[in-house]
Amino acid sequence: MPKALVCYYSRTGNTRRMAARMAEVLAAEGLEVDLKKVQETSPEDLLGYDCLVLGSPTYYGTMAWELKKLLDESVKFHGKLRGKVGGAFTSSANVGGGNETTVLDILQALLIHGMVVRGDHRFDHYGPVSIGRPDKRALVCAEAHARNLAALTKKLFP
Amino acid sequence: MPKALVCYYSRTGNTRRMAARMAEVLAAEGLEVDLKKVQETSPEDLLGYDCLVLGSPTYYGTMAWELKKLLDESVKFHGKLRGKVGGAFTSSANVGGGNETTVLDILQALLIHGMVVRGDHRFDHYGPVSIGRPDKRALVCAEAHARNLAALTKKLFP
Amino acid sequence: MPKALVCYYSRTGNTRRMAARMAEVLAAEGLEVDLKKVQETSPEDLLGYDCLVLGSPTYYGTMAWELKKLLDESVKFHGKLRGKVGGAFTSSANVGGGNETTVLDILQALLIHGMVVRGDHRFDHYGPVSIGRPDKRALVCAEAHARNLAALTKKLFP
Amino acid sequence: MPKALVCYYSRTGNTRRMAARMAEVLAAEGLEVDLKKVQETSPEDLLGYDCLVLGSPTYYGTMAWELKKLLDESVKFHGKLRGKVGGAFTSSANVGGGNETTVLDILQALLIHGMVVRGDHRFDHYGPVSIGRPDKRALVCAEAHARNLAALTKKLFP
Repeated sequence: MPKALVCYYSRTGNTRRMAARMAEVLAAEGLEVDLKKVQETSPEDLLGYDCLVLGSPTYYGTMAWELKKLLDESVKFHGKLRGKVGGAFTSSANVGGGNETTVLDILQALLIHGMVVRGDHRFDHYGPVSIGRPDKRALVCAEAHARNLAALTKKLFP
Repeated sequence: MPKALVCYYSRTGNTRRMAARMAEVLAAEGLEVDLKKVQETSPEDLLGYDCLVLGSPTYYGTMAWELKKLLDESVKFHGKLRGKVGGAFTSSANVGGGNETTVLDILQALLIHGMVVRGDHRFDHYGPVSIGRPDKRALVCAEAHARNLAALTKKLFP
Repeated sequence: MPKALVCYYSRTGNTRRMAARMAEVLAAEGLEVDLKKVQETSPEDLLGYDCLVLGSPTYYGTMAWELKKLLDESVKFHGKLRGKVGGAFTSSANVGGGNETTVLDILQALLIHGMVVRGDHRFDHYGPVSIGRPDKRALVCAEAHARNLAALTKKLFP
Repeated sequence: MPKALVCYYSRTGNTRRMAARMAEVLAAEGLEVDLKKVQETSPEDLLGYDCLVLGSPTYYGTMAWELKKLLDESVKFHGKLRGKVGGAFTSSANVGGGNETTVLDILQALLIHGMVVRGDHRFDHYGPVSIGRPDKRALVCAEAHARNLAALTKKLFP
């Protein structure tokens, strides 16, 4: 059974809610899933999964420093994550408030690790975005992305 | 009196409505303003202004090819726009649908021309975004950006 | 045998050289490969492949309008490309000249189509970049990306 | 006399060399300049300047977490930096290695603060990039950007 980690930073609970929904869907799709806070995740922890889904609030157009710190420290395993599946999500105060750039910055870090990412043709294209507390729209986006990531992971890590 | 051009591409009228609102505010702030469709704008036309505000619908995460064509053709005046003030806006089908990347792609083109751009600390930070037909939120963002651009243009081109 | 299209726009021949090298490597890795100019590619043509690799010179920080036009017109098949593998490459006049943003803009369009993309952990991370005429460094990057894309395509479309 | 802060994070000295060169040119252009490490800069320190130039190595396609931490903490002065002039620079291991996205992420944070940024039409367009230890090309880019920022700051804060 392929394994997925949903790892997030959250202060208000908005990003945590997105994380929890994505973890539920990944599990429902047949992956073994861990849901962890960034603060409780070490770079070593990233190695044991086939799929990494990282989330952060939108702070100044990109991820919170706490998540960036984890990524910076992951350099000691550079190359070890290549070929794994990755995804990203965020919560933001506003439309146009930097949410897309946050999702893309996380995806770019995963691409630099040599990972595989996927867009969604219907919903939030790069990764699910919540404006404030996740509403129905945001959760539907989160579910769609989680299903995409699950399907891709199962194909690549059968 | 400093001069501004608001130049846009629009099919459904959503981007046109954003353009019109920005043009109104720029004029109310004391600039001489032209409002033109991309299709009716030549690269030469870009030379006669102190402030260029470009808008496009969000198509595949960036500007419509019609606007890109104008920018590509503007290369023959490369260097002539340096120091001018620039801004960008878009309308998009969805939150998370590529609207920020569209605005940023336009701003990046303006930066490559050596232009000066400005963010907004309260509203859509990079440039105003409408989700579908501009609602009150989108128009307030458009107004704020237009006021920012007007103030900057008046300082730089008194 | 999975099928790949390498589709490019080129004026000086630099992007064409990158395209040709990627096509050679994809073929050597066992894919059936077509190499086409953007001008000779219709949106319909994109449907017949498991892997799409798109390239453009860097013009004002993003792809040439000719490639954007193809992408804009591909909207009539929106959803039909989902799950396919995608890649991007560019040639640029300068380091820091917009080459990364060009590659990312193409990748973002592919993500919006619901496609799967992959980074490289060693070389140009998002996609291969040539500064001027492709030198050894650029060709090595192009080869590495082509091998990554071939491996991913063979796994997903065996 | 307008005041500028050049604030950087550096481990190998490459980003520090870029910072030092930009500070020299800003001073030569008539600004009062402080050159500080991120680790020795508090959010309060950002308030006392007309121009902020921030630099970081390229780590996973964006700024080092130490600089992001400073930006995250600057939220308590959100709105106080609006209208100031900003710039960004980076050093990176590779062409195509995330250097443009690092510079743009810093610029985006500055735009979110409501700041004014400027591109360069000749050299590294978004902000100066060094590949490894700054060579002549990188230093020329750094000098050009510093002169641009000095000229803009003197116009806006005479």
